[in-house]
Amino acid sequence: MTAIATTRPRAALTEEARAELTALLGERFSTSGPVRDHHGKDESYHAAFPPDGVAFAQTTEEVSAIVTICAKHDLPIIPFGTGTSLEGGIAAVSGGITIDLSGMNAILRVSPEDLDVTVQAGVTRKRLNEHLRDTGLFFPIDPGADASLGGMTATRASGTNAVRYGTMRENVLGLTVVLADGRIIKTGGRARKSAAGYDLTRLFVGSEGTLGIVTEVTLKLYGIPEAVSSAVCAFNDIHGAVNTVIQTIQTGIPIARIELLDEVQMDAVNKYSKLDYAVAPTLFFEFHGTEAGVKEQAEMAAAIALEHGGVEFAWATRAEDRSKLWQARHDGYYAALALRPGSKGWPTDVCVPISRLADCILETKKDLAESNMLAPMVGHVGDGNFHLVYVIDPDKPEEMAEAQRLNDKMVARALAMGGTCTGEHGIGYGKMAFLEQEAGDAYAVMGEIKLALDPKNIMNPGKVVRV
Amino acid sequence: MTAIATTRPRAALTEEARAELTALLGERFSTSGPVRDHHGKDESYHAAFPPDGVAFAQTTEEVSAIVTICAKHDLPIIPFGTGTSLEGGIAAVSGGITIDLSGMNAILRVSPEDLDVTVQAGVTRKRLNEHLRDTGLFFPIDPGADASLGGMTATRASGTNAVRYGTMRENVLGLTVVLADGRIIKTGGRARKSAAGYDLTRLFVGSEGTLGIVTEVTLKLYGIPEAVSSAVCAFNDIHGAVNTVIQTIQTGIPIARIELLDEVQMDAVNKYSKLDYAVAPTLFFEFHGTEAGVKEQAEMAAAIALEHGGVEFAWATRAEDRSKLWQARHDGYYAALALRPGSKGWPTDVCVPISRLADCILETKKDLAESNMLAPMVGHVGDGNFHLVYVIDPDKPEEMAEAQRLNDKMVARALAMGGTCTGEHGIGYGKMAFLEQEAGDAYAVMGEIKLALDPKNIMNPGKVVRV
Repeated sequence: MTAIATTRPRAALTEEARAELTALLGERFSTSGPVRDHHGKDESYHAAFPPDGVAFAQTTEEVSAIVTICAKHDLPIIPFGTGTSLEGGIAAVSGGITIDLSGMNAILRVSPEDLDVTVQAGVTRKRLNEHLRDTGLFFPIDPGADASLGGMTATRASGTNAVRYGTMRENVLGLTVVLADGRIIKTGGRARKSAAGYDLTRLFVGSEGTLGIVTEVTLKLYGIPEAVSSAVCAFNDIHGAVNTVIQTIQTGIPIARIELLDEVQMDAVNKYSKLDYAVAPTLFFEFHGTEAGVKEQAEMAAAIALEHGGVEFAWATRAEDRSKLWQARHDGYYAALALRPGSKGWPTDVCVPISRLADCILETKKDLAESNMLAPMVGHVGDGNFHLVYVIDPDKPEEMAEAQRLNDKMVARALAMGGTCTGEHGIGYGKMAFLEQEAGDAYAVMGEIKLALDPKNIMNPGKVVRV
Repeated sequence: MTAIATTRPRAALTEEARAELTALLGERFSTSGPVRDHHGKDESYHAAFPPDGVAFAQTTEEVSAIVTICAKHDLPIIPFGTGTSLEGGIAAVSGGITIDLSGMNAILRVSPEDLDVTVQAGVTRKRLNEHLRDTGLFFPIDPGADASLGGMTATRASGTNAVRYGTMRENVLGLTVVLADGRIIKTGGRARKSAAGYDLTRLFVGSEGTLGIVTEVTLKLYGIPEAVSSAVCAFNDIHGAVNTVIQTIQTGIPIARIELLDEVQMDAVNKYSKLDYAVAPTLFFEFHGTEAGVKEQAEMAAAIALEHGGVEFAWATRAEDRSKLWQARHDGYYAALALRPGSKGWPTDVCVPISRLADCILETKKDLAESNMLAPMVGHVGDGNFHLVYVIDPDKPEEMAEAQRLNDKMVARALAMGGTCTGEHGIGYGKMAFLEQEAGDAYAVMGEIKLALDPKNIMNPGKVVRV
């Protein structure tokens, strides 16, 4: 694991700061042990670092007031949405105050005619889609977890639909952000494109709370497609599955989802979700479009799959069958952990140019086979992105060390192939060393920007960049 | 026009600096009058500001060496691609050295299997597409001018295809950038998505040379569609044309191009390109996809147009007819100027949420009618983006003042409607006051980032942000 030693020294919550936060928030400022513990640990294997206190904010102005108090007392500030980050992004590694944004859950505006929406940061993606149900619109970005849209913005989330609809990078139009000195700014806007000045929106998307706290997000929406069709296809070998993906993308089929699950993951899914899929490398497909368009896309993709050793194309055109299929996919993480009761998951992801995807996956699987590490693989392979979950007992140092060794090797491989150390999980405190390696001389520039916007290093310190 | 007074004082090219640049570049450093004049004026009405010298760079390392010399001597540095900017972006408002990147015109790598390419900054979009011709791939971003890809990156260019393929923001995967102190960094990479650290790529895209000089660009490519079809449709009134656009976008038809030309522009186009289109508000459409997909899209769009007073749908399915159609559209600027021999053009653009597009266009045209200003209108209306060209005699102060008044009013209207002061032309020195108005408190943040990366304010000073 990445050493935490280089982050700022642990801050102390003084009586004065506590009194000011309590005066501002009353019972919405908490220093109780269970509340702090809940906010110090994300869904990953990373060690917990509870904050010294948790502030439950309800408005942007309140976030600004909290930040102002923290800045005055030199207290770190960690934003928290749903706690579903995977690289320790919410851990209070230097202590300080967590700002819980889950109470900021208002959907401020929906404009069906403009296909956009503005939400407070604490709104989750599922709640947004429930709210939109009667409009014929939806928000496609789906990282699996029912994360908050503020958190998804902060980590530049993507997920299964990104191959067609893009990631948070492409789908955030504008933001309201509270800066390290309490200033409130609005970035971007509602125009679909703009050449007006620096792209601050994209700078904050993916900055993981280290440059400012996102309190409101304006997002693109999409019409629910007239027709949707999903299918599952098992392959003789993983090479055939990956080559199907590559050819599908290269052919320009506007596929909505194309997910790879290896034979280990399929075994886990079958057991966990009580299904009887073949225990073989498998692709999950989804097509969106008009009735005729979906039919055409599906026929083209099926033809490619059959050329590459696809053994069966099982269709799910009814909504409930599709839900079942994708629920099984989304439960992949829990299914993986269920393979070994009492274990924890060390989830990781890389992303490479698609021409290198087969090599990257095959070499990684060879390492896993040689190590006997249990690590199911799933991938948003249309983007060149795949995930492993090392299923480990974190109390066994030798297992942690082996997972680290395998992870180091996989990331190094992805970087050597022109890829990135994380396609969508983010850096947090878990991948800082990899980011430094990947960014090279640009890493220092990230630090210069961090210091320009947060000279006291109080915004989620010890994450993403070292300063 | 924006006052230039707030920019840094004019620098002097000392003998020492001249000697160092000459030692580095030999004859590729020029202080001749015609060369300087050529590099001080873009395609707009903005006043010319020739630099003190022009450095013709051939490599990234050479750009770094030039920047290092300029930094030592406190000389402004202005990057230059093809000089087709429209807001004075290349003007040497504080003197200094222009770095002409047109000699950096190598296509460094094409990866058909990954649908990406890396080029030096001086490669123009047309040359890239000629180079790609045999690969079945193309680069879609098309701002009209045959601009350099470095310049298009710097101004966040877009154009007619953006409604389907996005702008430079969505299509740049990675950059090589020379910073103000001569450091060379690489941003982004070849992975289709990444959650690794700050999005420096998007920060440099659209920064107009004020944060660094882009020397290499990695771009997404697309397969040339199996089928392409274009059509022209005249409308009874502009309201019907705009509502056709709005409904086409809201319906989710993946249209490749949807361009509005008002009756003034159609008259200009007919005269300039010797065509006989109806002199009426007109939409130019283009559809990309499979044969069946294009047919389906076109039928849907035609049905929408006919509902909204479209009077005729004239198809161009042959490549040469399509070329003629789009050449006429692209010649719109020159056609506008030809309406009044000896005139100059003051091109401007705004972009609004699409639900406000009809109001914004109609109110703007009302102002024009009341003023008797000749100003043809064209628009990338699928994005909510439209352009005017005020056809003026820049030697007549009353015409300049009237254009300024109309422009101020149009931009204010666009901002009040939730839009942006420029959809694609950029800020340069022409729209700095508008950017300040649009960005509000975020404007100061742009200045903080500028100072962090360019503390001496030598990178294209007097553009985009005031420091």
